[in-house]
Amino acid sequence: MFKSIKSILKEGTIGQEITLKGWVRTFRSNRFIAINDGSTIENIQAVVNFENFNEIFLKRITTGAAIEVTGSIVESQGKGQAVEILVKEMQILGDSDPEIYPIQPKKHSLEFLREHAHLRIRTNTFGAVMRVRSTLAYAIHKYFQDNGFFYVNTPIITGSDAEGAGEMFRVTTLDAKNPPLTQEGNIDYKKDFFGKETNLTVSGQLEGETFAMALGKIYTFGPTFRAENSNTSRHLAEFWMIEPEVAFLDLVGNMDLAEDFIKYVLKYTLETCREDIEFLEKRLQEEEKTKPQNERSEFSLIEKLEFVIHNNFKRVSYTEAIDILKNSKPNRNKKFSYLIDEWGADLQSEHERYLVEKHFKSPVILYDYPAKIKAFYMRLNEDGKTVRAMDILFPGIGEIVGGSQREERYDVLVEKIKAMGIDQKELWWYLDLRKFGTAVHSGFGLGFERLVLFTTGMTNIRDVIPYPRTPQNAEF
Amino acid sequence: MFKSIKSILKEGTIGQEITLKGWVRTFRSNRFIAINDGSTIENIQAVVNFENFNEIFLKRITTGAAIEVTGSIVESQGKGQAVEILVKEMQILGDSDPEIYPIQPKKHSLEFLREHAHLRIRTNTFGAVMRVRSTLAYAIHKYFQDNGFFYVNTPIITGSDAEGAGEMFRVTTLDAKNPPLTQEGNIDYKKDFFGKETNLTVSGQLEGETFAMALGKIYTFGPTFRAENSNTSRHLAEFWMIEPEVAFLDLVGNMDLAEDFIKYVLKYTLETCREDIEFLEKRLQEEEKTKPQNERSEFSLIEKLEFVIHNNFKRVSYTEAIDILKNSKPNRNKKFSYLIDEWGADLQSEHERYLVEKHFKSPVILYDYPAKIKAFYMRLNEDGKTVRAMDILFPGIGEIVGGSQREERYDVLVEKIKAMGIDQKELWWYLDLRKFGTAVHSGFGLGFERLVLFTTGMTNIRDVIPYPRTPQNAEF
Repeated sequence: MFKSIKSILKEGTIGQEITLKGWVRTFRSNRFIAINDGSTIENIQAVVNFENFNEIFLKRITTGAAIEVTGSIVESQGKGQAVEILVKEMQILGDSDPEIYPIQPKKHSLEFLREHAHLRIRTNTFGAVMRVRSTLAYAIHKYFQDNGFFYVNTPIITGSDAEGAGEMFRVTTLDAKNPPLTQEGNIDYKKDFFGKETNLTVSGQLEGETFAMALGKIYTFGPTFRAENSNTSRHLAEFWMIEPEVAFLDLVGNMDLAEDFIKYVLKYTLETCREDIEFLEKRLQEEEKTKPQNERSEFSLIEKLEFVIHNNFKRVSYTEAIDILKNSKPNRNKKFSYLIDEWGADLQSEHERYLVEKHFKSPVILYDYPAKIKAFYMRLNEDGKTVRAMDILFPGIGEIVGGSQREERYDVLVEKIKAMGIDQKELWWYLDLRKFGTAVHSGFGLGFERLVLFTTGMTNIRDVIPYPRTPQNAEF
Repeated sequence: MFKSIKSILKEGTIGQEITLKGWVRTFRSNRFIAINDGSTIENIQAVVNFENFNEIFLKRITTGAAIEVTGSIVESQGKGQAVEILVKEMQILGDSDPEIYPIQPKKHSLEFLREHAHLRIRTNTFGAVMRVRSTLAYAIHKYFQDNGFFYVNTPIITGSDAEGAGEMFRVTTLDAKNPPLTQEGNIDYKKDFFGKETNLTVSGQLEGETFAMALGKIYTFGPTFRAENSNTSRHLAEFWMIEPEVAFLDLVGNMDLAEDFIKYVLKYTLETCREDIEFLEKRLQEEEKTKPQNERSEFSLIEKLEFVIHNNFKRVSYTEAIDILKNSKPNRNKKFSYLIDEWGADLQSEHERYLVEKHFKSPVILYDYPAKIKAFYMRLNEDGKTVRAMDILFPGIGEIVGGSQREERYDVLVEKIKAMGIDQKELWWYLDLRKFGTAVHSGFGLGFERLVLFTTGMTNIRDVIPYPRTPQNAEF
């Protein structure tokens, strides 16, 4: 049985004979092969006595080739590794023609690698990003399961468009060219697969609430979709979202939960993926060097993560935030694209960044927003004009969490649904939760890719998901 | 801070004063309230001295009402529970009108509950099923992460239809009634959101392979879709699938992995959800009683799970299976709907059930299938007519796993793609894996809902997913 490079580096003992399989990263001086098998960012160095192998064979040891190596573990003579493998036998499993293999041992642009997304995972950067992503996902499950939450798979295809979180993709099996029509000449969705018009979900929250009102504490973790034509480095048409929902929890408890949760998953991932994150930190430092001094980050990647883990998030009401923004330099000097002049204004990304990056220099939880700029299901405060909403804003990322206490009062909820022009009939089951054993409850949504961005220090959201879906792009 | 009923039952000490919140299941003799908060299948009994509360208040303690109770933990006088709560204070958080609340403390049919899927989670059966489902999901993540696998989110929206695993749903933002047309009068998918025709994925395998050939060991766990008009108790249009993929692993290693994996997740779940599974076992026994003697299961639910955990799956080649089936009683007596008369026949569910339930009375791994009845990507054996495929068949469920060693040889794969009439250009990136550092690799897919069916003893797949999607049904 062959061993992973991670286990050899961790547990291998000098003198032990082992077999490993992996891919060649580099081959230097006809003697030193750096091999990687994906189990860790670290390569293992295999040392070849070139007199034992013929020249034609050695020529096939090229970047990207899959090889099998048997040999003994010895102390390394060189720098950079504690042990290496003295090769006894070697086999080439799969060649990699250096004339055409796109992933050569040199710096490739992220744009180039995006076009080769099926191979970019073989680079140090994307290997590290994807291992960190996997570990973050596991930390999320572990946090919730250790704390008595149940995982719920809310539906992906949905017949309800009541949530209103954004533009939706239609899901259909109707003939695109000659769809069946009703007598009135409209599309006859009764003949579609589900007997009605269906879309890809924008959020599992409403269904999640039905589970919280039975199982108490639940979370979702699944794909969600936005058919919005926004080609930015922060938006994807398909992304993964985590949505916990808890019965008998109010807004303050919801903030506590979100903060504790984020700190836990960052801490777990930093401990588990230390080497990957150290690599990504160096990578980021290199990248920062190309920027003008004043645009460089004060913190290294790990300092930034440690800061979030060890400091309280600042909790600031919307009203306080508006005061801060109104009196801020960029507002007074008219540097904001959207000037803040009165209570009720929707905050733009520039305002969020000012609060987080300039004013507080810390993650910020904004709460108690004006009802008018928030969704129908948020709990109306006693002042009649704000709702128990909260957004968590992160440096460099902006909004990473959006949550609220939910409106648990039947009559108030019906009023809001009417006022927002939503079809009440669509939400019969959601309203039932307020008819039968209603209670205070809260939850939030966290965009998984934004969390991966923050943890890896990458700057384009397309680089932290295996195969990004964006306008005009669904390759692979 | 209030406590969960699970923690009170587990850690509460006599005399301790606690607060809990939950929903009324029953209220007997104006004295005993059974309260459930979803944290466990067990209720806690709250004992009320009715003289301390007025009659109007007590009338509101109805099934489904949300209440908050403060009192001390005392030893129970009655049977069925060790401790109970002597109520000091009580508050009704949300009423539940017994005239209209659909979930009354009596037996409801599963069909009725499906129509009230947003409330069915409040029953013992669905609470148990959904807790087991959550635990199985976590066990899956835990198994893979503990064993060095990385979690990969393969895309849900896909532009490739090469896999051919089934009928697909189209994803679009084009105007349904007046779609843009090309000069030739066809739908102009260049104007669609992604600039081409896109569908919901039927499998993440092909993308998963790209990750395995970089990170070594990976798994997916996400939703997959089939637009097939099959209204059976075993099929869903939207279901969750787990697909591990491992570099340098052959078919035998793949069988070992699948067997070890299934045993682990069943064992973990049986230990973690013992009470839920004991309840589901009793439920199943009640249901079995309504069946004729000869249709009843020999095993109880837990016996069945223990059997799978502790016994080796029988490994049988397709060729051996055909011999067994050809000579079987139902084949000789022409009881099979599809008679087996020669090598090459595709196995139907009746044949699989015969092998598993009558002949071997054990989970069975069938392997080395005829190439003709299997997918293009499966590794051709040296005999030139069979492929290194394997299916795992479970009693009562049928196929629960389908997997294979993948064809790693570029030329052989191209031949097979051509022979099956698939557009080679669509698969350029998949073929690249065979061009650059190719190696033996294998993987399998496991239908999550079928695993939940098996573990819970439920018989209709609609009852083990929160909100089932089936032809003509996308409610909630």
